[in-house]
Amino acid sequence: MKGIGVSPGIAIGRAYWLRQREARVSGIVLADAVAVEAEKVKYRGAVVAAIGELEAMMATAGKEEAAILEVQVELLRDPAWEEEVFRRIGEHLMPARDAVLLTIAPFVEMFEKMEDDYLRARAADIKDIGWRLFRQLAGFPAGRHLPDGKGWIVVAEDLTPSDMIGLDAGRVEGFITQAGGKTSHTAIVARLRGLPAVVAMGKALVAVADGDELVLDGESGVVLVNPPAKVLAKYRRKRNEFLRRRQMLESLKDRVAVTRDGVRVHLEANIASVEDMEQALSYGAEGVGLLRTELLFMERDQLPTEEEQFTFYKNVLLRSGGRPVTIRTLDIGGDKPLPYLGLPKEENPFLGYRAIRICLDRRDLFLTQLRAILRAGVFGSCRIMFPMIGSVEELRVAKAVVAEARETLTVEGVDFAADIPVGVMIEIPSAALTADLLAKEADFFSIGTNDLCQYTLAVDRMNEKIAALYDPFHPAVLRLIRMTIEEGQRAGIPVGMCGELAGDVAATKLLFDMGLREFSMAAASIPEVKAIILGL
Amino acid sequence: MKGIGVSPGIAIGRAYWLRQREARVSGIVLADAVAVEAEKVKYRGAVVAAIGELEAMMATAGKEEAAILEVQVELLRDPAWEEEVFRRIGEHLMPARDAVLLTIAPFVEMFEKMEDDYLRARAADIKDIGWRLFRQLAGFPAGRHLPDGKGWIVVAEDLTPSDMIGLDAGRVEGFITQAGGKTSHTAIVARLRGLPAVVAMGKALVAVADGDELVLDGESGVVLVNPPAKVLAKYRRKRNEFLRRRQMLESLKDRVAVTRDGVRVHLEANIASVEDMEQALSYGAEGVGLLRTELLFMERDQLPTEEEQFTFYKNVLLRSGGRPVTIRTLDIGGDKPLPYLGLPKEENPFLGYRAIRICLDRRDLFLTQLRAILRAGVFGSCRIMFPMIGSVEELRVAKAVVAEARETLTVEGVDFAADIPVGVMIEIPSAALTADLLAKEADFFSIGTNDLCQYTLAVDRMNEKIAALYDPFHPAVLRLIRMTIEEGQRAGIPVGMCGELAGDVAATKLLFDMGLREFSMAAASIPEVKAIILGL
Repeated sequence: MKGIGVSPGIAIGRAYWLRQREARVSGIVLADAVAVEAEKVKYRGAVVAAIGELEAMMATAGKEEAAILEVQVELLRDPAWEEEVFRRIGEHLMPARDAVLLTIAPFVEMFEKMEDDYLRARAADIKDIGWRLFRQLAGFPAGRHLPDGKGWIVVAEDLTPSDMIGLDAGRVEGFITQAGGKTSHTAIVARLRGLPAVVAMGKALVAVADGDELVLDGESGVVLVNPPAKVLAKYRRKRNEFLRRRQMLESLKDRVAVTRDGVRVHLEANIASVEDMEQALSYGAEGVGLLRTELLFMERDQLPTEEEQFTFYKNVLLRSGGRPVTIRTLDIGGDKPLPYLGLPKEENPFLGYRAIRICLDRRDLFLTQLRAILRAGVFGSCRIMFPMIGSVEELRVAKAVVAEARETLTVEGVDFAADIPVGVMIEIPSAALTADLLAKEADFFSIGTNDLCQYTLAVDRMNEKIAALYDPFHPAVLRLIRMTIEEGQRAGIPVGMCGELAGDVAATKLLFDMGLREFSMAAASIPEVKAIILGL
Repeated sequence: MKGIGVSPGIAIGRAYWLRQREARVSGIVLADAVAVEAEKVKYRGAVVAAIGELEAMMATAGKEEAAILEVQVELLRDPAWEEEVFRRIGEHLMPARDAVLLTIAPFVEMFEKMEDDYLRARAADIKDIGWRLFRQLAGFPAGRHLPDGKGWIVVAEDLTPSDMIGLDAGRVEGFITQAGGKTSHTAIVARLRGLPAVVAMGKALVAVADGDELVLDGESGVVLVNPPAKVLAKYRRKRNEFLRRRQMLESLKDRVAVTRDGVRVHLEANIASVEDMEQALSYGAEGVGLLRTELLFMERDQLPTEEEQFTFYKNVLLRSGGRPVTIRTLDIGGDKPLPYLGLPKEENPFLGYRAIRICLDRRDLFLTQLRAILRAGVFGSCRIMFPMIGSVEELRVAKAVVAEARETLTVEGVDFAADIPVGVMIEIPSAALTADLLAKEADFFSIGTNDLCQYTLAVDRMNEKIAALYDPFHPAVLRLIRMTIEEGQRAGIPVGMCGELAGDVAATKLLFDMGLREFSMAAASIPEVKAIILGL
């Protein structure tokens, strides 16, 4: 059988089905105000219990896994959920269990539709806490437990992050699920645990029974059920080779990325939260080439204040240990809506009102973010980066708002970092094509290959009908990348890359040869890319 | 007051409101099968009467105006309408008048949503015949008539093409409407008649009363109500200047477009129907740089047969008088849906499954069109052009289908033109950026500036929130245009342009200086562009 391999390695073990009970809306209508109050109390109790469960798991989990659970604890503490759940209980006279499911659903749907892999994965966190609360409220038994013994391969329809973290790590060899995708939480947690995983198996998986002997290849997505001894032996050898290579990669963690003839390359991580920073450092990131700031705006129902933003940026910088952190200003719109901003429904959101276009239109919002970044800048080494810049004019206007932020802070006598470099993402073809002009006014470039590729090829990579046309190795895309690197070099400004191509080992040598010296990627890709650089 | 000027010139005259009675669904339910049959007979009678009215108007109209009316007659004769109307009468027991309104509505809506100006204007034709049939069926009086005398400026909420053609030309000075846009039929007919027109006046227009003295400037969109004598005199002088210039432009009709130092430029027209060809020739077009083939596919509920397509292409070529005609293969999808193809609803249709992408996926459909073009090719001088080519691979696959079409025709012993050049539209940034590679395998290029600009700038030009960012003079767009022209020249293949920029007089000199020698545009723009070329 074949699925999508999402966490590399070979697993060999016995199948065990972990089945999830279904969460269904009861449809019960509460009788009176007393019942309403009782349900609210029940909800609060469920939240406390859920946080308790998560914290207990965190106590025994690894650092990165604990970070995932911490995100969930923070989500549970967000008063916006309670407000919305209480509103449903009170207005619609529904029990807390129904109110939880109905409150969670639209958020899950919103995140699942996003193009950004990182944000899309957030849907699983929200589903996960929704299930946890529901389970408390519906009185379902906690957890899903493995039978005794070792060497289990967990088989399931889908797995939540806490399902996986809750499983006893020493007794699991790998994961196979019917649902899921490359960037699902199943994939993320499996990679964190260093366990092979195959997802998106579909209906075929029901043929697997508890106790079947399974082999799974987390790279190719191949799953073998009760294979003959000869095949099994072949896969045992493959597994050993893989483990040796992994050890070698781990040994690179503290080595600097430098070619054999001494050219230094900087490998950084793309992150979106304080918790991500831990993971980035554990993989040896030398800094953050892309700090996404959208999450702060999305997991709530109003704009975050300057103070809230300041605290977030400051905490990221404090945990960075002095490493450079590039903060991208709000990249909202397109597939990332902010309901409370009342953005219009668009025919072609990717070609629409988004990112810097919204910020230059909503100066209040932009000024607040820039003030927060400038203030946080005194706690570390940071840079400001504008997304979706399409012309020199836009860059000038955006820089004028930075100047305004500096002025207002100066007038108010507030402490801030005066010397923060201001750069642009090169992700619209027009920006790459006028890189020579932009280089005169930007302090640095960072190439965003995902959008650059989409626009250059006129292909929405989320559209399954034409997915095959999305190709970052198309000569037109490579020419724009080379053009950007060369113009940056000519102007003497640094050029980095923070799109997916930066973490693709098939592109490393090509990009290095074009002159790229700053690669920012998903933290887990850093060791592989580093191994290639060390061999150049 | 100010609206949008859509047909240049100054008009001075007295206001006359032409009011349209409203077409409303009656909601009547037919009693029995006898009533159903009676309504079907009534519908057939209404069609005959409507065609009679249109033919009477055609007898006295000019050539181009008659062509517009001919389109409507053809639409009325389309058996698909009758089938649909009869279905509604029979299944829903509704009178013919309601069935007509409900049959027309979805087509009007579909066409109104299209990005392509030409196709969008078709909505007015369909509305117009819908109203004409409804009027017959509802027993409303025919036509809207001017009072006696000359010098009227017609004021209306909106005007249908036949409203305007039906008005006695000699007694009208200009048109002002509350609704409409740059490419509405009001604009098209006004330009055909050489009468100034201002549209999109909105509610403000209700302040104008019958008999008011009006001045309207069809370029700036300014409308003056009862202006003082001094102002009036100024506008009389402006009007005379304008008329002198128009005469001069008309005198250029049969002159060749050549610069003062003898460089020859070819000015061609973009058309979509046999009728358009008349208009193109009347403006002195030297050929057709873009024949759109979508209409044949859209005004029906199934794919046109090879014979139907062959007849259409043949008729266009016969009327071209041997001038070159570039036929663009089906450019459907995106904002131009074909309900009967069952195309998926997309998040970003402009970055989706459209044009050549559909044709290469639906080879049957593509092969049929190519066979029809190859067969028609013996009746004139034609070229085949593929839209939305993004890579050399796509061009190769598309050319293989042309080869297959040639082979099947050869095997069947059917006559066809063997030497038709095959070229590509350069409208995706990747195509412009790899023009050197495409030039090796294409017989010619034609630059499509509308899409090229949209993708290069990541701006949907139909999106009002960011309309200001759509700028074909952006240096990145101009660089891609120059790159395409230069690579075409280097490879020794012709390079034309058929996007809107080709008809923009502000761009003529710039494009000429870049080396462009083939401009294809809306026929009405040809004289102005020619005047500029003659002065270079």
